[in-house]
Amino acid sequence: MSTMNKQYRLAARPVGVPKDSDWEFTTEALPEIGADEVLVKIHYASLDPAMRGWMNEGRSYIPPVKIGEVMRAGTVGEVVASNSPDFKAGDFVSGMLGIQQYGKALAKDLTKVDPKLAPIETYLGGLGMPGLTAYFGLLDVGAVKEGDTVLVSGAAGAVGSLVGQIAKIKGARAVGIAGGPDKCAYVVDELGFDACLDYKSDSFLQDLKEPLKAGVDVYFDNVGGEILDIALARINRHARIVICGAISQYNNTTPMRGPQNYINLLVHHARMEGFVVFDYVTRYGEGVKELATWYGQGNLKFRTQVETGIENFPAVLLKLFKGENTGKLVLKIIED
Amino acid sequence: MSTMNKQYRLAARPVGVPKDSDWEFTTEALPEIGADEVLVKIHYASLDPAMRGWMNEGRSYIPPVKIGEVMRAGTVGEVVASNSPDFKAGDFVSGMLGIQQYGKALAKDLTKVDPKLAPIETYLGGLGMPGLTAYFGLLDVGAVKEGDTVLVSGAAGAVGSLVGQIAKIKGARAVGIAGGPDKCAYVVDELGFDACLDYKSDSFLQDLKEPLKAGVDVYFDNVGGEILDIALARINRHARIVICGAISQYNNTTPMRGPQNYINLLVHHARMEGFVVFDYVTRYGEGVKELATWYGQGNLKFRTQVETGIENFPAVLLKLFKGENTGKLVLKIIED
Repeated sequence: MSTMNKQYRLAARPVGVPKDSDWEFTTEALPEIGADEVLVKIHYASLDPAMRGWMNEGRSYIPPVKIGEVMRAGTVGEVVASNSPDFKAGDFVSGMLGIQQYGKALAKDLTKVDPKLAPIETYLGGLGMPGLTAYFGLLDVGAVKEGDTVLVSGAAGAVGSLVGQIAKIKGARAVGIAGGPDKCAYVVDELGFDACLDYKSDSFLQDLKEPLKAGVDVYFDNVGGEILDIALARINRHARIVICGAISQYNNTTPMRGPQNYINLLVHHARMEGFVVFDYVTRYGEGVKELATWYGQGNLKFRTQVETGIENFPAVLLKLFKGENTGKLVLKIIED
Repeated sequence: MSTMNKQYRLAARPVGVPKDSDWEFTTEALPEIGADEVLVKIHYASLDPAMRGWMNEGRSYIPPVKIGEVMRAGTVGEVVASNSPDFKAGDFVSGMLGIQQYGKALAKDLTKVDPKLAPIETYLGGLGMPGLTAYFGLLDVGAVKEGDTVLVSGAAGAVGSLVGQIAKIKGARAVGIAGGPDKCAYVVDELGFDACLDYKSDSFLQDLKEPLKAGVDVYFDNVGGEILDIALARINRHARIVICGAISQYNNTTPMRGPQNYINLLVHHARMEGFVVFDYVTRYGEGVKELATWYGQGNLKFRTQVETGIENFPAVLLKLFKGENTGKLVLKIIED
């Protein structure tokens, strides 16, 4: 085991797209662990659109990452030392340990994961936050019903890919929006969505007419911007718009674009509701259990895009904002 | 009784603010009534922001007024002839009879009103659509609870003035937004709101800090535009934004302004929900009964601004969009 720990720290608050000088790549000694603390060798770090928001100053659902602090990230890894009776060396755990090779945490802030049930990186994806985000967002906020038409943007992404699959499990129609023919083929052929619309295609506005001819009952929004307005233009009576993210707007240096068609909420007695997965922390167990059951039955497919090397973190993170990922994007931290 | 009927008809679809040439002032013979029909001499017509939307082409919650058609409006008046056993000459009724001196309707489309309980024009205001809009919007869509802070724009208007009063009846704090010190004084001193903010004041953004220091639990939006964004910036966890109207945007010739701060719905797990009062048609009886009870107990005050003369209809309608009304705006059609 190394005695040193490489880490990515936030050096400056980005303006627009994060650039190299917004990061500091540091090396320091392994941390000591105190009472009830556990030291974890990190295997994989989760890269998520929400990380962009955590880098900004200001009031949000969790405090921003401080300047000089190790960048916050979800991780999975192996326990290497423990002062807690609940964990022993060799256990696999998930927790918010950040972009570094080793991290420590209080035992209460770690969750054991089962490497026999699924590859451990799955606990950053389908059986982790993205899975729970799709699960509670679609079922609780979106209140999906059999026969609904569910439209989801970012359909080839970590959350969107699960939203459509869960919609199908619940007897709804699933229509995805994704960037490019390869992603759309994946969404329909591998994930089983009823249709997928390529927003980069010149015929996008034409293409959506047929799959959405019955209107939209649930729109699960991961992207914001123009696509949110296009969805609002096609909502049915009592539609539910689930605001999960707005990745098209996160690197804006101008004000965020508001949905001009929000007035359709009035016309159709519809609602737009936002959430973050942390709102459901007391129900995570319920969610993971059902997701794991569907996964075990072969009804839910997870895809993980693994990029390697902690030193590549700044460049790999940007793939999210360039639409260069399919499925859950993770960074492999441990060296082979 | 006259044998002729003066009427305002829609001559053209307005671009921006309606102008005189968008109307045709016609005179024709009184209509004959057929089976089950009733002829009404109209005393008052209701002037409402929603009328601007009915003048536009396109899909909405009710069909647009056709070119050449009598302008749609809520009215109260006196039955002068009836082919229905349910109505007799001398009954007072309300119904959507339009901007004209006499209107006919099927008996099923008229509702008797009681001139002893309240002046008949009240059935266009506090005991009519605006009252029901405030009632169902705040209680059903807004789900107001004791101790909530309720913010309402258009607070001196027909709907907003009732929203704040009903909030107070339910044990919530009521904060209004209105244009000018006179309206604000009316809202606080006569209607009993806890505070009222003058959006025309240079110190508006400063002034709202103290009354909204506990944040906003329910925002009842009648205006849209910048004020909707200001409200979204101050919402509490699980806040409800009730989209009732967007009068600041109705005469736009450019696209409607979308709420840039809608992403706060995500941060605070809040929802924005729209409605129109017609959604509650099966529950109107329940609403009118409770509104009439509160009115009878002196807990609800209605103010009606009566303008006179059918020939003045185009100019009087514009008062709504210039903010030149306090309380319910009606046009007295019958001549003294």
